[in-house]
Amino acid sequence: MPESPIRKLVPYAEKAKKKGRKVYHLNIGQPDIETPEVALNAIRNYDENVVAYSHSAGNLSYREKLTEYYKQNNITVTPDDIIVSAGASEAILFAMNSCLDEGDEVIIPEPFYANYNGFAINAGVTVKPIPSSIKDGFALPPIADFEKAITDKTKAIMICNPNNPTGYLYSKEELETLRKIVLKYDLFLFADEVYREFTYDNHKHFSVMELDGLDEHVVMIDSVSKRYSACGFRIGCMVSRNEKVMATALKFAQARLSPPSFGQVAAEAALDTPKEYFDQVLQEYYNRRQIVVESINKMEGAFCPQPKGAFYVVASLPIDNADRFCQWLLEDYEYENQTVMLAPATGFYSTEGSGRQEVRISYVLNVDDLKKAMDVLENALKNYPGREI
Amino acid sequence: MPESPIRKLVPYAEKAKKKGRKVYHLNIGQPDIETPEVALNAIRNYDENVVAYSHSAGNLSYREKLTEYYKQNNITVTPDDIIVSAGASEAILFAMNSCLDEGDEVIIPEPFYANYNGFAINAGVTVKPIPSSIKDGFALPPIADFEKAITDKTKAIMICNPNNPTGYLYSKEELETLRKIVLKYDLFLFADEVYREFTYDNHKHFSVMELDGLDEHVVMIDSVSKRYSACGFRIGCMVSRNEKVMATALKFAQARLSPPSFGQVAAEAALDTPKEYFDQVLQEYYNRRQIVVESINKMEGAFCPQPKGAFYVVASLPIDNADRFCQWLLEDYEYENQTVMLAPATGFYSTEGSGRQEVRISYVLNVDDLKKAMDVLENALKNYPGREI
Repeated sequence: MPESPIRKLVPYAEKAKKKGRKVYHLNIGQPDIETPEVALNAIRNYDENVVAYSHSAGNLSYREKLTEYYKQNNITVTPDDIIVSAGASEAILFAMNSCLDEGDEVIIPEPFYANYNGFAINAGVTVKPIPSSIKDGFALPPIADFEKAITDKTKAIMICNPNNPTGYLYSKEELETLRKIVLKYDLFLFADEVYREFTYDNHKHFSVMELDGLDEHVVMIDSVSKRYSACGFRIGCMVSRNEKVMATALKFAQARLSPPSFGQVAAEAALDTPKEYFDQVLQEYYNRRQIVVESINKMEGAFCPQPKGAFYVVASLPIDNADRFCQWLLEDYEYENQTVMLAPATGFYSTEGSGRQEVRISYVLNVDDLKKAMDVLENALKNYPGREI
Repeated sequence: MPESPIRKLVPYAEKAKKKGRKVYHLNIGQPDIETPEVALNAIRNYDENVVAYSHSAGNLSYREKLTEYYKQNNITVTPDDIIVSAGASEAILFAMNSCLDEGDEVIIPEPFYANYNGFAINAGVTVKPIPSSIKDGFALPPIADFEKAITDKTKAIMICNPNNPTGYLYSKEELETLRKIVLKYDLFLFADEVYREFTYDNHKHFSVMELDGLDEHVVMIDSVSKRYSACGFRIGCMVSRNEKVMATALKFAQARLSPPSFGQVAAEAALDTPKEYFDQVLQEYYNRRQIVVESINKMEGAFCPQPKGAFYVVASLPIDNADRFCQWLLEDYEYENQTVMLAPATGFYSTEGSGRQEVRISYVLNVDDLKKAMDVLENALKNYPGREI
């Protein structure tokens, strides 16, 4: 597996810190938001004496409660339509292994979450990227682009909605377009919906599970990591109404015995998180997005769409090479003894050469730090030797 | 993936229970022993506010403490030689994916832990079984059998020591034999050592990590599940001194982000489990093994070796077909309204037709229940219509 561009930067970030520099981490997907008390209390009150394997598909009590949560989100499923996994990561692996064979192709609009590549390699599947463009905010590529990419080996389309890395929120209309392609070519539709709650400007998430007539086609991937700022729980799930797919996925789940028991207890309790928690978190992310988008669009030669979801933006910058720029920021640059760590967008494209003038910015810092980080970035762009307007 | 013979029995066990029958579960690997208090207390005192991703290789504090534990077991490793995983399951996947390519072959003495098949399918690897025999207690097959099985595609030998399902403990001499084969044919040697602590009659476990000159060849698989009766932690690890293998495995680990955070906290604390805990547990398992082995060998036409490790035995019984017998026990038989659930050994052999007169018995019940279960089995054998002496 190739090394990701972000991983390559880690030693430079460490060196910068050793020099005493403050490094603002805008490169990560780890929220700084607190995990809900109700979830942590469930762990603190854990009262079993034997920490046993759970059901391979996850505790029934948790899956039952999840169906209520999904119902509130307009998604009707039964506990049998859910397999609890070690994060969305394992759910993606289960989905690929259960639906696809060695050598099959999956179409993914790029830029896309870089780890999909790792799971595809693991499952022996080939990713066929089709480009989305920063110009229209990374909207769904035209139907013609999907049709051009489809071959005899194409078995699935995969999306992330709201999107990591772009923050783009697919509309109901875009998903209806996907529905037609999926039915026409008899494909699976995988949708990673782990950022479901994070939508702004009164936009509501529309799930692939709400599409009509796709019960045999749709596999939804979910996780509690971002929703409850609970990345360490390692609890996600795979959701599908396709019984055959779920039966196969269950065998993979049985081979690894069970998902984490403590994480399941915490995740089940997290479903009782009060609405106020999300109101506050959403307001906080909204404020951060405003700072990032406004700041970047004020920088000369830079552009950033205003995404409707998640907590990421992909911005285009006036630079020769994002990998080089991000390394330079850590290795050679400081502004009042501060610098920023960004994710070069090259890692989110699988088409060679794409994303060289783009970076992903995660707004996982508090408003004050975010403002300082934007100042650092603005000054850095003015001083970067590889500046290209 | 094929359905395992044990899984097929589950609905019959449920039906038996619905009829009000007491079912003694001798079919499972879930110990009834309590998880150490020191581990549970660590979870109850969990004091982080954000449950974040850990390092992809696991918390450094845990890996450092693990090196001390290994040192006490005569295994010298550094924290960089360890990747913490979601149970031994994930560690086996990492090992196979990092060392083997699609189509490669791995030789495993059979009977072997059935889930190895699932991981091999997942990694695109072919399992080549070579038979071990109940007659010599499932000792290591002769070197000639290994050599006969080796082809151009053979890249690894895998053992489980102490063994699941047989309980066999490989001697230092047997491991030295394996060492020679591994060096002669330049193979990897995977060893699943999750039952390391469970050895009886003053026998001590000898690890593949203690073999000389195999740093580039050996990958050891470990887990806290059995050691601390902590199956639900989902914490294991992959251990190897081969830097290239560990670098590749780390990329797979990074793709799935991190192992479970709560489980790691509990597992790290579990390393402080007092010696008395193990003394008691070992005495308990010793007593149980005596009951099972003595009882079975008193039954007419039955035979059971006296294994030196783990908490399993494979017994040969005077029956026509183990799958049929185990189903009959649940579906058609009762003795004073009780019955037993056993694991047909057929699931532990990948050679078609092998293990048809053998069952695996896990001694994970308390002494009183175990005695009752043995009475039920003895009577069942007398009454089974497919009895074959």
